[in-house]
Amino acid sequence: MSSQADTKWKGYAIRDTKHWDSFEVIDFNPKQFEDYDIDIKIEYCGVCGSDVHTITGGWGEPMLPLITGHEIVGHVVRVGPKVTAFKVGDRAGVGAQVCSCLKCKPCTTDNEQYCPNAVSTYNAKYPNGDIAHGGYSTAVRAHERFVFPLPKELPLEEIAPMLCAGITVYSPLIRNGAGPGKCIGVVGIGGLGHYALQFARALGAEQVVAFSHSSGKEKDARELGATDVVITSNKNFAEPWKGKLDLIICTADVSQGIPLSDFITTLGVHGRFIMVAIPDDQLPTLRSTQMVSNGALLGGSHIGSKKEVIEMLDLAVKENVKSYIEVLPMKDAGKAVRGVKDNTVRYRHVLKVDI
Amino acid sequence: MSSQADTKWKGYAIRDTKHWDSFEVIDFNPKQFEDYDIDIKIEYCGVCGSDVHTITGGWGEPMLPLITGHEIVGHVVRVGPKVTAFKVGDRAGVGAQVCSCLKCKPCTTDNEQYCPNAVSTYNAKYPNGDIAHGGYSTAVRAHERFVFPLPKELPLEEIAPMLCAGITVYSPLIRNGAGPGKCIGVVGIGGLGHYALQFARALGAEQVVAFSHSSGKEKDARELGATDVVITSNKNFAEPWKGKLDLIICTADVSQGIPLSDFITTLGVHGRFIMVAIPDDQLPTLRSTQMVSNGALLGGSHIGSKKEVIEMLDLAVKENVKSYIEVLPMKDAGKAVRGVKDNTVRYRHVLKVDI
Repeated sequence: MSSQADTKWKGYAIRDTKHWDSFEVIDFNPKQFEDYDIDIKIEYCGVCGSDVHTITGGWGEPMLPLITGHEIVGHVVRVGPKVTAFKVGDRAGVGAQVCSCLKCKPCTTDNEQYCPNAVSTYNAKYPNGDIAHGGYSTAVRAHERFVFPLPKELPLEEIAPMLCAGITVYSPLIRNGAGPGKCIGVVGIGGLGHYALQFARALGAEQVVAFSHSSGKEKDARELGATDVVITSNKNFAEPWKGKLDLIICTADVSQGIPLSDFITTLGVHGRFIMVAIPDDQLPTLRSTQMVSNGALLGGSHIGSKKEVIEMLDLAVKENVKSYIEVLPMKDAGKAVRGVKDNTVRYRHVLKVDI
Repeated sequence: MSSQADTKWKGYAIRDTKHWDSFEVIDFNPKQFEDYDIDIKIEYCGVCGSDVHTITGGWGEPMLPLITGHEIVGHVVRVGPKVTAFKVGDRAGVGAQVCSCLKCKPCTTDNEQYCPNAVSTYNAKYPNGDIAHGGYSTAVRAHERFVFPLPKELPLEEIAPMLCAGITVYSPLIRNGAGPGKCIGVVGIGGLGHYALQFARALGAEQVVAFSHSSGKEKDARELGATDVVITSNKNFAEPWKGKLDLIICTADVSQGIPLSDFITTLGVHGRFIMVAIPDDQLPTLRSTQMVSNGALLGGSHIGSKKEVIEMLDLAVKENVKSYIEVLPMKDAGKAVRGVKDNTVRYRHVLKVDI
């Protein structure tokens, strides 16, 4: 018996990156069940930009057939004998990571998302060779360290996108000092950006500046907490903001198209420009002098720790952070990923399981 | 009478960036003397990589004739009526900055080196149009905020290069947490790097890793405090250091030649790669994913504050930080800049005034 043969689940998969919006239902085996594992019957799964990068081959050729989805919510249906924090029937969620070594320095310092042996939720292999499958499916299995308890105050479908889009912006906000007195910029008002504006506001930032390519999202941006909206297609857009921002979270999934040099001029001394999107292409080139002149820092951030997910959900409840979502039946996964690719979704598709 | 006509000083100047190592003695007028100004009779001036970038036109066409030099030491010969911290006869030094607005946020938070209206020591204009001339000369005039008291324990010629090369690496070490338990990398063992190794050690770093293109400086690097020496021309040099460094100070004045992607892999979670050199060319291109995978930060740093210069000199005395210098008469400025350009100096030329 193969290690994955103990259970048969179903999911929406693509078979070819050329036909990246053609999903069909397939049977699949989850990873081998182990003592700390939890099975979650999925109710909803958000549709993330990462799903699109992966199914289109933008990040390289994926393992096929491929079931994506890493904004997963549902209820616990099975727990391993060593699981302590969950029981059958609990609401639970899984984000973009399902395993890590649990022993290294990142893992033991609430930085498990940076474990060199982290296993992603899909298009990834466990150390034993088992394949990790995503949440466009009936169920998911993960080590309890990567399963999140979900607050009862929020609807499951609104929590789903927070488990990747939300934590991806919450973690760098927290880790880079967003809070009272600070001026925080958010580049790109989309799935990630719409949370970044709200969390920046919820954390008490004095100014929250939305940078958007066009003016179409200005009203939404203000509703989401932006104190200022800057249209980056305007010439010299950065000029009035020179030296004013403490932190910019860049959620824009473009690369050669980012006016990165302009953004760096908007940072104050040792201000930080943190990229959370991972465009397929390279970033624009920079000169050392651009960062030397204000001591700016350009960095990246990867999802967040379980500790941060729990804090984020708590803050979302307390400060009334909202998910702007469009729920579709899971059979419409193709339509949903197309909406992400074309940037028409406002601001996150969530798929409801229908198999 | 022009505002600069009150005093006539002499300096070694170039007249043409095509003949960047041809210095001739010219007369020049210092800035107009003001209430907080101090005149220093120069005894020594270090020769910095910035001098070479400027005289060769690498950073753009400079104002000509041009007197470079911003590692200046000597004795006070005149103080303005409002100067309180210095008197005639005091040892004093000037680094790479001679003025700032003194009012803005950077200026009022010991970040005066990042003042948007900072005036550099040479190839720069004061707000009133007066030209700032460098230290390959008989004297320099600066606002007392930009004049440093010098410890009696160190010879003047050894202090000179600390006022730019030293502070350029000391400030980012301090500001990015160099200290006990930390693993600090230094890229490039030259004028800046030879101080970076010593200051990292003096600050108590657990490991100090010298990254050098070739093995020729290994012995020196160890003498300067390196616990490890890594030769970056070796294939896969970064592999054993993956995820291990907390901070890298990059002093290497190359751009497309820096194996930047490899260095980023050597950083631990939220490790920082701080560039202090300003190459003429662009940096190598990067992908967002390289910084997302370990949350790394890439940044710049510009000299240091007066507060930091004073701390640095104090630490240099206490921890026996040495300047490896070759003293030349100032008439040999051409030979000295050629030595910097050709990377043959070990590790800093200091010019002794001879006019």
